Amino acid sequence: MPDGYPHSERSRVKRLHQRGHYDHETVHAVIDAATFCHVGYVIDGQPYVTPTLHWRAGTRLYWHGSSASRMLRTVKEGVPACVTVALMDGLVLARSGFHCSVNYRSAMAFGTARAITDDDEKVAALEEFVEGIVPGHWAEMRPPNAQEIKATTVVGMDIDEAAAKIRTGPPADDEEDYALPCWAGVLPVTQTVGAPIPDPRLTPGIAPPDYLARFRVG
Amino acid sequence: MPDGYPHSERSRVKRLHQRGHYDHETVHAVIDAATFCHVGYVIDGQPYVTPTLHWRAGTRLYWHGSSASRMLRTVKEGVPACVTVALMDGLVLARSGFHCSVNYRSAMAFGTARAITDDDEKVAALEEFVEGIVPGHWAEMRPPNAQEIKATTVVGMDIDEAAAKIRTGPPADDEEDYALPCWAGVLPVTQTVGAPIPDPRLTPGIAPPDYLARFRVG
Repeated sequence: MPDGYPHSERSRVKRLHQRGHYDHETVHAVIDAATFCHVGYVIDGQPYVTPTLHWRAGTRLYWHGSSASRMLRTVKEGVPACVTVALMDGLVLARSGFHCSVNYRSAMAFGTARAITDDDEKVAALEEFVEGIVPGHWAEMRPPNAQEIKATTVVGMDIDEAAAKIRTGPPADDEEDYALPCWAGVLPVTQTVGAPIPDPRLTPGIAPPDYLARFRVG
Repeated sequence: MPDGYPHSERSRVKRLHQRGHYDHETVHAVIDAATFCHVGYVIDGQPYVTPTLHWRAGTRLYWHGSSASRMLRTVKEGVPACVTVALMDGLVLARSGFHCSVNYRSAMAFGTARAITDDDEKVAALEEFVEGIVPGHWAEMRPPNAQEIKATTVVGMDIDEAAAKIRTGPPADDEEDYALPCWAGVLPVTQTVGAPIPDPRLTPGIAPPDYLARFRVG
């Protein structure tokens, strides 16, 4: 058995359970393919869902933002959080509405986040984040100063439970519907990175670095 | 003043409030540009965030799924929900980590969802959903039967409060950093729809219909 995440009633894929995956390799591949996630948290019984960029080291998820962020001020206190990522890979058009669907990769991770309070550890985590997206850019930038480090909160969440849910392939119609004179198939959706747009104030003579080509989405 | 959503402490954009928008036109444009949303809900104090496709009519959001879905069984009971959409339009590389950012369009809507219990209303809503994505496909498909209608839950949520948050444009660096020998600018990200992939079991002679070209993402 490969390494996998525990799954309880909270995290088990219930509907279409054959689409569920719990092994680290599959769950991590979905998490890593998504540039941003949606963080769910509760304040006074009200759910909030905040999109933000994330990164991962082993079985730990990280995200960051302004220290004044409501989301970060809430989750860093150790309340239950749910971090979900979703990528749409295609629209699945079937011969009945009931079997129309979407090809997707999604993952839901549960845990409790904690703020990284050590400044060196915080900066190291941010470097790992930037280097994971555009390796080489960190070294070119001005290093963070004390005020910026204070104004930034980084949280880490050990994943207690997680599941990925994935759909691929053509529609799965009712057998008697295949004869219908209806187009059926998949409209694939992809995310692409376009040509770099230099800052209008870029110092003349600075060419787009090779590391820009390392940035991938999806 | 254009029509706008109320916003309280719950929904007001707090960080970088100049990125916040509450007018219907802006909020609806973001909601409509996203094919899927993330629905936040709470069970026994635990937040859950479930991705799903949505559609909109006026100031009402709709989504649907299996009647056995935990998410739908929960939200249709009239508990507080938060529906968030987010589109990433680009990675913003600045001359300091602190000013690195993302160009995005996001919206957060709060309300209470209710199941549509009338079968005709339910089917009409589903038709509106499909026609909003690929206008013309509904008429080609087999109509839903009684069992499928029963197995499908459609919920509608009147938006009580909502806000959009949008970032565009180049990095905004500290003035003294513009002289640094560091590349800065935007890596644009776009979602595109590829060529239709016919179902391997498609009846020979059925050409891709024109309505496939109507499907847009982002």
